[in-house]
Amino acid sequence: MSLRYLSARLAQQIDNELMSAAGAFSLDQLTELAGLACAQTLAKVYGVEKYNRVLVCCGPGNQGMSISKSLFGYKPAIYMPKVGSISRLHTQCKNMSIPTLGEDEESLRTALKSSDVILDAIFGFSFKGPNRAPFDSALSMISASGLPIVSVDIPSGWDVEAGNDAGFGLSPDVLVSLTAPKEGVRTFRGQHFLGGRFVPRTLEEKFGLNLPIYPGYEQIVDITEATRKL
Amino acid sequence: MSLRYLSARLAQQIDNELMSAAGAFSLDQLTELAGLACAQTLAKVYGVEKYNRVLVCCGPGNQGMSISKSLFGYKPAIYMPKVGSISRLHTQCKNMSIPTLGEDEESLRTALKSSDVILDAIFGFSFKGPNRAPFDSALSMISASGLPIVSVDIPSGWDVEAGNDAGFGLSPDVLVSLTAPKEGVRTFRGQHFLGGRFVPRTLEEKFGLNLPIYPGYEQIVDITEATRKL
Repeated sequence: MSLRYLSARLAQQIDNELMSAAGAFSLDQLTELAGLACAQTLAKVYGVEKYNRVLVCCGPGNQGMSISKSLFGYKPAIYMPKVGSISRLHTQCKNMSIPTLGEDEESLRTALKSSDVILDAIFGFSFKGPNRAPFDSALSMISASGLPIVSVDIPSGWDVEAGNDAGFGLSPDVLVSLTAPKEGVRTFRGQHFLGGRFVPRTLEEKFGLNLPIYPGYEQIVDITEATRKL
Repeated sequence: MSLRYLSARLAQQIDNELMSAAGAFSLDQLTELAGLACAQTLAKVYGVEKYNRVLVCCGPGNQGMSISKSLFGYKPAIYMPKVGSISRLHTQCKNMSIPTLGEDEESLRTALKSSDVILDAIFGFSFKGPNRAPFDSALSMISASGLPIVSVDIPSGWDVEAGNDAGFGLSPDVLVSLTAPKEGVRTFRGQHFLGGRFVPRTLEEKFGLNLPIYPGYEQIVDITEATRKL
């Protein structure tokens, strides 16, 4: 029985069920747990001594903020190609003295020079191309930096089902899928983790997810080997 | 500089500030993180092989539910001396097939015989005696069981400032204080952990908390030695 890759529709359906009256999760809860999982993934692969300065690239959602505040011991900085209204999680980051860079290209250029690793949380599984400004140049600059990249759920610029067929997506070294991996990342050949240790058995069985067993108290599980076989 | 013990008033004030517009935390977030910390404490002291069956004793709040669903690998069961309305967290526990016992004494008696360890989350820091029915007999029965007890924040029946002066409180083996230890637990001499890794430095400095450094990615830090010295 192998791990199931999710279509866009199924990924959305599982999210909806988790947050339905029956599933009973709040968005705050899921975001918090996913944030811990992503931060833990980065910490597992890129040790704090050598990779202290993390550039967390955030999209319209709140996931990047949640990860930033969970990067215990690191020096995160937040970059948003398009700064929106200040969310509660963004305020929490400010209270923790995590800086938010300007949204212009020059800020990103400077930040890339003084970062050790990229946490890519720009686009999630609902991204649909084409890749419009200012995100197009942001992705190009991040790729050109040559820094190691940890992507969340779907590498930014990839289609949730077609993957990086369009070619403008990031090429991360590490991927942390949330809840279950998506169709689009079947071809991903880097180090692959799974996070989102909150899916009830009933939901797992209903959708035949065949999730792996998380070790001990970890919020993540390494699925590199499991996905290589698929 | 030693760890500060909190009065009832100060504990409430810190909670209020965390959840104010400036602090920006939601109750869901804080409950989730505290739940992970408490579950991790139990797992650290009472290994899952020998102490698989955890009786989680819950009060009017939601903290016990949050702990129950984070007891990865264990077989938790929920006991509430007084069952209220079903919260979202309680629904999540039901979805995870965590049973909730009847609120009668016979259910508790039976459950105590088939449990390996107690997680005491009945009363928090806002408890004020006297200890009324049905909580009085529940505490007596839990004490009489002789099972090891992990208490959350304040052992149930203790006053947040006067401690167990009234004498009817539980005598836990392990305590996990949340945010910072409270005045009432100065005399506690068991194994003592601190959880609540979310207090921003500014708040810590404002109130002179002198919090210890949490190791690695842990949600808890052992403060047994630190509090012995105070």
